[in-house]
Amino acid sequence: MSTLASCELLAGIPAMPPLPAAAAARIEAFTAEMERSAASFVGYPCSQDFDCSEIIPLLRYSLNNIGDPFGESIYRENTFPFEREVIAFFQKHLRAPAGETWGYTTTGGTEGNLYGLYLARELYPNGVVYYSEHTHYSAAKIVRVLGARSIMIRGQENGEIDYDDLRETLKIHRDVPPIILANIGTTMHGAVDDLGKIRAMLKDLAIARHYIHADAALSGMILPWVADPQPFGFDSGVDSISVSGHKFIGSPMPCGVVLARRSHVDRVARSVEYVGCMDTTIAGSRNGFSPLILWSALQRRGEAGLRQRAADCFALADYAISQFQAAGLNAWRHRNSVTVVFPRPGPEVLARWQIAPSRDIAHIITLPHVTRAMIDAVVAEVAASLDRTKEPSR
Amino acid sequence: MSTLASCELLAGIPAMPPLPAAAAARIEAFTAEMERSAASFVGYPCSQDFDCSEIIPLLRYSLNNIGDPFGESIYRENTFPFEREVIAFFQKHLRAPAGETWGYTTTGGTEGNLYGLYLARELYPNGVVYYSEHTHYSAAKIVRVLGARSIMIRGQENGEIDYDDLRETLKIHRDVPPIILANIGTTMHGAVDDLGKIRAMLKDLAIARHYIHADAALSGMILPWVADPQPFGFDSGVDSISVSGHKFIGSPMPCGVVLARRSHVDRVARSVEYVGCMDTTIAGSRNGFSPLILWSALQRRGEAGLRQRAADCFALADYAISQFQAAGLNAWRHRNSVTVVFPRPGPEVLARWQIAPSRDIAHIITLPHVTRAMIDAVVAEVAASLDRTKEPSR
Repeated sequence: MSTLASCELLAGIPAMPPLPAAAAARIEAFTAEMERSAASFVGYPCSQDFDCSEIIPLLRYSLNNIGDPFGESIYRENTFPFEREVIAFFQKHLRAPAGETWGYTTTGGTEGNLYGLYLARELYPNGVVYYSEHTHYSAAKIVRVLGARSIMIRGQENGEIDYDDLRETLKIHRDVPPIILANIGTTMHGAVDDLGKIRAMLKDLAIARHYIHADAALSGMILPWVADPQPFGFDSGVDSISVSGHKFIGSPMPCGVVLARRSHVDRVARSVEYVGCMDTTIAGSRNGFSPLILWSALQRRGEAGLRQRAADCFALADYAISQFQAAGLNAWRHRNSVTVVFPRPGPEVLARWQIAPSRDIAHIITLPHVTRAMIDAVVAEVAASLDRTKEPSR
Repeated sequence: MSTLASCELLAGIPAMPPLPAAAAARIEAFTAEMERSAASFVGYPCSQDFDCSEIIPLLRYSLNNIGDPFGESIYRENTFPFEREVIAFFQKHLRAPAGETWGYTTTGGTEGNLYGLYLARELYPNGVVYYSEHTHYSAAKIVRVLGARSIMIRGQENGEIDYDDLRETLKIHRDVPPIILANIGTTMHGAVDDLGKIRAMLKDLAIARHYIHADAALSGMILPWVADPQPFGFDSGVDSISVSGHKFIGSPMPCGVVLARRSHVDRVARSVEYVGCMDTTIAGSRNGFSPLILWSALQRRGEAGLRQRAADCFALADYAISQFQAAGLNAWRHRNSVTVVFPRPGPEVLARWQIAPSRDIAHIITLPHVTRAMIDAVVAEVAASLDRTKEPSR
């Protein structure tokens, strides 16, 4: 592996002074802290088994993917060719009809969701955004930024949207187009909102003008690898979809991919061009390193590797559930999900294992960096914690 | 320097397969292409003399600065402590009164401008955004995303906003609060909109409710280092300011800092909390590596180093101007600017040197990676190109 210091450009221009000793010591101590922290990283849907060594020499350049990855740029230090291949991979596996979608790599799920809902609001300026109470908290922020109308729908206990509440609410607002933000894997439960039911509902209510955006942050890169996926892609009627790159695939920095039907993108681009901006992305100047992270991971793992990876994660999830159950704790997961839900333990367990709880539940995400030993330790601590919690009532 | 492969965590979890040979060859060829491209990088305001070697071992972790850098996070793989020091550095040099501003590291200028204008629109929902025609094209996109009203103001030939047009336009819209997007260094001319004149205008028109956001992408990290800066910071009445990190400082990926008056942030946070979201940033999941890039650069260069860096860039700009003038070409720059404007050459020169022109002008940005030899070559080619262009009329 070549190191940064061996790059020729650096030799031609004034070298940066090194870190002062105190600052270097802080970086070293911080690295050790991160190493310790990584050993207890079971509560977030971010794979840690990535390795960027092979692309690190490219951190020598001012990489910047300005604007549309399918456009031309005077700025040549971009990774558009790699980004386009990443987009093509996601188009294929998110079941986009050939040539009918457009997309770009984002800074993560929020930008992807903002992009999808921005398109929707441009198409339907008086549309109402519907999303369940189990939707990621950033949905409220996005709707606020866009100045869009929105209605939060009740959620079922299993994490899915309450279809009856959705149906009743749609019914009394049939004068405005619905913009449905569907969860393809909720943050807490890993639940998938049923796109089939939602579309049937829209059809039944004769609501022809509608938009469905899928927040598929984690599951959007898991469902392509299973034999019996819940409806999740363009073949299930979504208009746009946002998937994270730092979740199932893994990345040292948040990133993702957003795809949308090209007809929507083109319509919005035409109206935005009218106000003097050809840029169809949200960010403009965009990280050129993250497409390399995703491209190299996809190259290194391949489709077969990702399929095996998903199977390994499910096996690990089932192992966790069996261990929880052996300890007398009710743990479960949705079909095709790696999110294992169990009763909320005390705060010291949540803090040690970096687990964000919600009401009376907690979860671990059984991604490949999580070992059986880590699971055993979590189960033992959760059991001990809940046992102590119960003591007063014995 | 430790390499990624030597990190302990990697040893404990399944290793990624290496890049297939064809993919590795593509990365190698692409790196060589970037190296060649870097040698002609004179037209964009991005310093290339950075070096991230010392922080690269941290690319081993799932760094993610979720939400407010001054908040607490269950997710511990964050660089909040470093981010807070970067914010403090910018607060000091953008002349923020102690304790009266809040900020975070962004993905670049667009997110910072979006954040500032989002705050403004929340404070003044019926406000009108005013910006000059020389403003970066992303302003139109941001205003569109926010669904805000806006009016584009005429620009002067030197790149500054046309104060007469601004005054007349403000005057006929005194029923709605103005949200002024001021350029502290325009993209094409490096021109600084006069905040003193703008504030005097607002006072003279008795417009008490107003908001000023400064787009200080490049100059926001140059003006702190000169003896006689144009008004640019919080002491000049701005409500929020966005500065890029990948421009004067330099970074392998776009990044930046946005600062805003805390009273505005708090007011907006309260109303957003009401809808169920405590996150005060735009992105939510945020790049945790970019604060390290900025922190280490600030540590390595120090204030004295940055001051010298600015002086060196001005000297280089003056050298470029003298060479252009010696070749009979009218080249100039604004006071305290490193943007050297000259007559637009033919397309082959623009393409070779990665220069984005506008109407009849072009520019180079004399940042530290630009050498005198590069400038000499640009001047010779521009002169030859314009000489050829003139030939038919001889």
